[in-house]
Amino acid sequence: MIPKNHPRYNSLIEREKIKDAMKKSYLAESGMIAHGRGEAFDYLIEEKTSKTAEMAIKASLAMLLLSENPVISINGNSTALAIDQIIELSKKINAKVELNLFYRTDKRVKIIKELFEKKGFNKLLGTDPYNLKYINGLESPRATASKEGIYSADTILVMLEDGDRTEILAQNGKFIIAIDLNPLSRTAQMANITIVDNITRTIPLMIKISDNLKNKTEKELNKIINDFSNEKNLNDSLELIRGKFK
Amino acid sequence: MIPKNHPRYNSLIEREKIKDAMKKSYLAESGMIAHGRGEAFDYLIEEKTSKTAEMAIKASLAMLLLSENPVISINGNSTALAIDQIIELSKKINAKVELNLFYRTDKRVKIIKELFEKKGFNKLLGTDPYNLKYINGLESPRATASKEGIYSADTILVMLEDGDRTEILAQNGKFIIAIDLNPLSRTAQMANITIVDNITRTIPLMIKISDNLKNKTEKELNKIINDFSNEKNLNDSLELIRGKFK
Repeated sequence: MIPKNHPRYNSLIEREKIKDAMKKSYLAESGMIAHGRGEAFDYLIEEKTSKTAEMAIKASLAMLLLSENPVISINGNSTALAIDQIIELSKKINAKVELNLFYRTDKRVKIIKELFEKKGFNKLLGTDPYNLKYINGLESPRATASKEGIYSADTILVMLEDGDRTEILAQNGKFIIAIDLNPLSRTAQMANITIVDNITRTIPLMIKISDNLKNKTEKELNKIINDFSNEKNLNDSLELIRGKFK
Repeated sequence: MIPKNHPRYNSLIEREKIKDAMKKSYLAESGMIAHGRGEAFDYLIEEKTSKTAEMAIKASLAMLLLSENPVISINGNSTALAIDQIIELSKKINAKVELNLFYRTDKRVKIIKELFEKKGFNKLLGTDPYNLKYINGLESPRATASKEGIYSADTILVMLEDGDRTEILAQNGKFIIAIDLNPLSRTAQMANITIVDNITRTIPLMIKISDNLKNKTEKELNKIINDFSNEKNLNDSLELIRGKFK
């Protein structure tokens, strides 16, 4: 048991969740290493959601609320860290949820599908291998998508996403919102909106902010998006981390 | 098989070694996550040994060669990544090698001991639980050391080391040389000499440089140490990473 007053309580709880996912066999070994990389970057932003990230979160929600077919793309790591919050957010913003695994196996897909079903969520997309299409006709495991979900989505929220996958989605003209702790990653650099933050803080905050934004008019939401510059926002995140190395 | 011309070949090979150590049960899950943190910091220094790190390496070797009882402290991660190089370095500089595990179990100790024995190295210290002393009388698993090794050592080379452990060693008056990819870590900050680099590059380079330094006089080696400022060297490493976030 990790005491609640431990200065790194949240980080240690996340680590336990990742270990648990590995023991339950739905997370690949590489998922643990990826989590470690995330830990390093979270440490560099002081394990806090910055004002900069909050601005990107607000713009992301405005975009998601204005979208015709928004989809939240998930994997083993995001399931392990934030399954409840992902389900709640999807309901708040009326977005679909689709599974995409870097190391896809039938077993991992089945376990994750059942985890969502146990939470009463029976609409997880991307789980039926016979119903997957290839984006831009690219016959790569990075390019698979369900027809009703990511394949036809206008806006996709990715988190802890692989760079090759993000590139394929971006080249397909999707509006990409990425939650990524590394502002230098290919995913962070390619996304239309980049939230440099930990998903375990971002998603609960998205749920909270979405309640405010849902009362806004289309015009007001558009203004939020137009006032937002991802280039400037990313630079602000880099500046924040630069300060850590002084 | 990872193609040799892959731009991140070395990093991917390291990842395979870490996964293999986990499958062979001598690396704890946390060791995989720790490796991921290391990957992130290695990426920030462009996966290259800087001139700054090279200076720290040279000063470290001068110190190790001048020491009465130098000991190389190893764990599961360093065994997985550099067992051959650790053995070779220990012979070159006449240093002992001692095992210290953060998550110590008899099974892990036994596997690592046998890995060294298979390489013809039968003198791994710290493996006999009945022959461990507690540094400064601290009854903590972080404070254990073998009498002939770390307990009586004057200089200890630690790598991928836990901050609590380093603190205990430093408080005990040991001269600490740390190889650590994170220049902000407690270990990096507390060490007398900090090499901000990846052990898979550092140790082969130490082996190479030790051949040159072995011909130097005691006076020349002392000059190398006196000319070295760890504070300045650490600041140079921070500056290097700061440049990455521009």
